[in-house]
Amino acid sequence: MAEAYGNLSYTAARGYCEAVFISYGFTREESVLITDVLLRADLYGIESHGIQRLIRYHKEITGGLVDVSAKPAVVFETPISVVLDARKAMGQLTAAEAMERAIQKAEQSGIGMAAVRNSNHYGIAGYYTRMAAEKDLMGLCMTNTEAICVPTFGKQAMLGTNPIAVAMPAEPYVFSFDASTTVVPRGKLEVYKKGGMSMPDNWAVDQDGYTSRDAAEVLDNIIAKRGGGIAPLGGLGELFGGHKGYGLAAIVDIFTGILSGGMTSNHVNITPGSTDICHFFMAVDYGLFGGKAEIKERLSVFLRELRDSRKADGQQRIYTHGEKEAERMAERSLSGFPVNPKTRDEMRDIARARRIDINTYFGEGCL
Amino acid sequence: MAEAYGNLSYTAARGYCEAVFISYGFTREESVLITDVLLRADLYGIESHGIQRLIRYHKEITGGLVDVSAKPAVVFETPISVVLDARKAMGQLTAAEAMERAIQKAEQSGIGMAAVRNSNHYGIAGYYTRMAAEKDLMGLCMTNTEAICVPTFGKQAMLGTNPIAVAMPAEPYVFSFDASTTVVPRGKLEVYKKGGMSMPDNWAVDQDGYTSRDAAEVLDNIIAKRGGGIAPLGGLGELFGGHKGYGLAAIVDIFTGILSGGMTSNHVNITPGSTDICHFFMAVDYGLFGGKAEIKERLSVFLRELRDSRKADGQQRIYTHGEKEAERMAERSLSGFPVNPKTRDEMRDIARARRIDINTYFGEGCL
Repeated sequence: MAEAYGNLSYTAARGYCEAVFISYGFTREESVLITDVLLRADLYGIESHGIQRLIRYHKEITGGLVDVSAKPAVVFETPISVVLDARKAMGQLTAAEAMERAIQKAEQSGIGMAAVRNSNHYGIAGYYTRMAAEKDLMGLCMTNTEAICVPTFGKQAMLGTNPIAVAMPAEPYVFSFDASTTVVPRGKLEVYKKGGMSMPDNWAVDQDGYTSRDAAEVLDNIIAKRGGGIAPLGGLGELFGGHKGYGLAAIVDIFTGILSGGMTSNHVNITPGSTDICHFFMAVDYGLFGGKAEIKERLSVFLRELRDSRKADGQQRIYTHGEKEAERMAERSLSGFPVNPKTRDEMRDIARARRIDINTYFGEGCL
Repeated sequence: MAEAYGNLSYTAARGYCEAVFISYGFTREESVLITDVLLRADLYGIESHGIQRLIRYHKEITGGLVDVSAKPAVVFETPISVVLDARKAMGQLTAAEAMERAIQKAEQSGIGMAAVRNSNHYGIAGYYTRMAAEKDLMGLCMTNTEAICVPTFGKQAMLGTNPIAVAMPAEPYVFSFDASTTVVPRGKLEVYKKGGMSMPDNWAVDQDGYTSRDAAEVLDNIIAKRGGGIAPLGGLGELFGGHKGYGLAAIVDIFTGILSGGMTSNHVNITPGSTDICHFFMAVDYGLFGGKAEIKERLSVFLRELRDSRKADGQQRIYTHGEKEAERMAERSLSGFPVNPKTRDEMRDIARARRIDINTYFGEGCL
């Protein structure tokens, strides 16, 4: 199977990933779902959350942080809400089940909410909000993560990247917002470290709380818990609204760690043997506010007005959220997606460890 | 009545404001509520939304943008949601009624949501979310405003300051987040203009979409709709996450302008005779997720952990959201709050226009 230079065929990658997940003991259906979440990130152009993370899931599954056979348990339920204990199940499976429960409640009662504790990384939040949008509902989703972000005026990482995702049906693209509440995600620092580039001021602080341009130092400090970390959205201090990003990150921990009865970001990845990540999901039937066709049409018009508004000098396009992903997915489903040499090495290593013949999927010497 | 230099007595200001609102034809009860929202901003230390805005309400009421006798009408309702047409009623009265309806629904059904169209400025969003917190509920509130914020890569103001507020009961302070989704609010540019100060890069753009340090120019351009405006939270472009603030502002317009069937920010303050501002309110009984005492205690612990985390060199305190406001209110309820000379002049002008003897409230020569 010939690949465009640097690109990997989506179909081949899917077959390979499904085989890898089946090898850990997941059912075929589960492996298809986990793979779909993982590769959707590559199709959307969010490489940080795509197949380059396979090595991380491999380590978490084989290292016992993820319990392959665990099923989330309901610990509290009402007609419009549910609290799930994921019992260390795979994050993607837990998240899809939780959003499915929220969707069912929304279809019956207009709204459904699910708070989840003791889970694991679940990939891109936008996958789950789009599950709601596909059922003609609004979707909202949040997760906490290991602490990596310092509060305003602080030098100790206390909050995760804590993304917020919101999706709502619109034409010609679903409106789909999915963003961390930090100024940049951790993956951005990794890119700067690998490239030996100097970070802009206001992205991160060193162990004493001063702005740092050294991505390697900041990442090392976070891992060793020596202090320092990434700035909240809005940057350091209050001049550019850093206290707003800090507050949004705290709100994510309220909906995830607090409502679920689980751990807040500052306690995630602390206890040996579990990550203790928590999530929150909400589905809302926007028919609670009137005729759905009219509401959807009004949103489509508003998004078009944004895209059609006057561009800054030198700019060609204004995007609305979800547009770039829709365009990239249409293209990459056919042409494949770029995968760097390090990730290709990791894919070969994982295949060897799981006794999978990688040539079955990519052809001899083609990965 | 002796005043500390620069400070105005809270009790005197309250009596004065109530008399002003009664003079327009509001009932005593309505005037007490509008005054409470207005002066709470001064007590919290959010001067931009306090008594210095009285002149703006005076102009909107006497100019016919606000209909003093209008009552919001229910246009759509379910057990957990309601859409209100404010019919140009005073924003504060509309907002308090809408949140009260959301609270009643939450007390009966666990959650209540209210989307409002054809309203007016309602003051600080945090006033209404705290109404929910006082009933031991989570509160969420959003509003759109006149377009003042450019989308990422744009040079045309298309989005309002579009604040998001979230409150949740905790000890010893309610967690209360209330922030615009722009890098700074409009009032900050007014301060820089008055002081003749140069703005930092990344706050605002000129009419061609280039970063501008000239607050007067940017404000004049916005008023004349010549182009340019304030950057979204995260600044210009994508380097510091400006596309995230842009998306959050769009989400606020979805919940307010779109769900209510009203106007989005880019159409606010366009039609002569009405502002067409839209709001959204939500109250959630957090008992939907388990024992309320435990949830509240967990949140209180988390907020304390944030405050107690290690400070950046040179910093004395890390705040959690709502803490500064609680401290300032305790102090200012007794000592009064600062009011600048221009606002004092405006208060005298309004008193004259409304045939109110200002000395009744502040004492001869004391304003």
